[in-house]
Amino acid sequence: MGPNSLKDSRAQIIARMISLLEGAAREGAQLVVYPELAFTTFFPRWDYASEAELLQFMERTMPNPSVQALFDRAAALKVGFYVGYGELTPDGHRYNSAIIVRSDGRTLLKYRKIHLPGSTHVRPAQKYQQLEKRYFRYGDLGFPVARAPAEWGNAVMGMLICNDRRWPEGWRVLGLQNVELVCIGYNSAAYDPNGGESESAETRTFHSTLAVQANAYMNATWAVSVAKAGVEDGAGLIGGSLIVDPNGMIRAQARTLEDELIFAEADLDLCRQGKEKIFNFAAHRRPQWYRPIVDQVGAVEPPPAE
Amino acid sequence: MGPNSLKDSRAQIIARMISLLEGAAREGAQLVVYPELAFTTFFPRWDYASEAELLQFMERTMPNPSVQALFDRAAALKVGFYVGYGELTPDGHRYNSAIIVRSDGRTLLKYRKIHLPGSTHVRPAQKYQQLEKRYFRYGDLGFPVARAPAEWGNAVMGMLICNDRRWPEGWRVLGLQNVELVCIGYNSAAYDPNGGESESAETRTFHSTLAVQANAYMNATWAVSVAKAGVEDGAGLIGGSLIVDPNGMIRAQARTLEDELIFAEADLDLCRQGKEKIFNFAAHRRPQWYRPIVDQVGAVEPPPAE
Repeated sequence: MGPNSLKDSRAQIIARMISLLEGAAREGAQLVVYPELAFTTFFPRWDYASEAELLQFMERTMPNPSVQALFDRAAALKVGFYVGYGELTPDGHRYNSAIIVRSDGRTLLKYRKIHLPGSTHVRPAQKYQQLEKRYFRYGDLGFPVARAPAEWGNAVMGMLICNDRRWPEGWRVLGLQNVELVCIGYNSAAYDPNGGESESAETRTFHSTLAVQANAYMNATWAVSVAKAGVEDGAGLIGGSLIVDPNGMIRAQARTLEDELIFAEADLDLCRQGKEKIFNFAAHRRPQWYRPIVDQVGAVEPPPAE
Repeated sequence: MGPNSLKDSRAQIIARMISLLEGAAREGAQLVVYPELAFTTFFPRWDYASEAELLQFMERTMPNPSVQALFDRAAALKVGFYVGYGELTPDGHRYNSAIIVRSDGRTLLKYRKIHLPGSTHVRPAQKYQQLEKRYFRYGDLGFPVARAPAEWGNAVMGMLICNDRRWPEGWRVLGLQNVELVCIGYNSAAYDPNGGESESAETRTFHSTLAVQANAYMNATWAVSVAKAGVEDGAGLIGGSLIVDPNGMIRAQARTLEDELIFAEADLDLCRQGKEKIFNFAAHRRPQWYRPIVDQVGAVEPPPAE
């Protein structure tokens, strides 16, 4: 998806998403993956002083009237989708969430982002912020999977959101549930919008691609990783949306920073070789040596040299 | 390193290793990384009926007279090294081990391979076996690190062996100890030597490269991953030795399947950005959701679709 700016109305954004959906359906797509926070701009870049201001970016139910047209069109076309959105719970908590919607319109699976980047505190000297840790609670649903209905080959499906894709722990928890297709949406900065020194957009896109390829390979799963790209409200986001097979190989990759469709047919049987041989977890994993992964949060320095 | 065949004497192999060491020292190398089981052919491809036959591939102490010339030359040149070898303990246990030797000849760190591939049972119909699980015990030293002496910049150094490099758990346990340089040796089949259908050498080399690049990036560490390559006793091994920086980028990669030197200068400060920002573990990890990584060995299927 190309950028969503603050000036874009929800109706405009939904119209673009429906246009993409229809284009995908024409090519025979059964599942469409939209990015993280697909219905809005990446609003954690702005400092909103009041809760009330954040409400414009939040969905109290899913679906709801502001997104219903997308759900209706998808059900009519019998196309399912993954979509990321800002979730507001009845008790007033906000999460960076995603759902997978079946082709019959029912929700198959819901996930709340666990690896929130950014900070809790506003940096007053900076125009652009990254306030995910301020605006959202940490996801509290774990890394769930669901078995898809027959029209999707009964695939075991899982989800990650943006920064999660760089954390092998999340991928492995999905892999330990035999995941066969991981859907990911992201909004990743292409550079420091405040003008500081930073890695190039090429390096950032390389990292995004590398993490998905390797974790798909190491868990013998398909992965679809989808950007909201381009310049939103003056801040650039990388593209590089891609579809990766269980060998870690790229089957399709976006070339623009705008609304664009890429496709692949995901043969789930390609997961078999990895899951049964080199990544046969039951045969080869040695969890007694993995304890620091759960017993530690941060890194612990070794003692000084002799 | 190129191949070591059964017909090669230990003296011949050590002479080649010394020649490589001297070439590296001439270019200013301070640390040389040799492959897994560097002193022998990859003997787990053969079915040895008796323990006595395996002894020819085992080191009872390290160093010992059969490898002393390498240790002596390295100390004289003030070059340290990583080397993999078959270890026989005083109580008769065998491990697939590696050590890092300091430039003064003392051992800095020892590791015993945890992710043993292959099988415990001989497949009688096959000429070539993969009997690592039969010949070796699982490593029992965890994933240790050590802080190197000053001449290596006090780097936090860790080790993996061959198949370990495909398992993000081992990398993460090293990362949680703030590792800055991971040394890896491997012997990886280029094809099925028994003539069965299998992935191409190109795909296998891609996997080897991908796993090291991504895990180096995700743990913000340098990595040096070194093949024993070429055709050993009729069985092909991939090459693709490489040096990867903490951004996951390849700084040097071998082009042949023979004895060959590649170099890089490892600026340890390049680990800082990753460790302090995007992979600041203390700030971003959520171990309460990683429990299946230690609570499960194999994958557990989700329930069937509704």
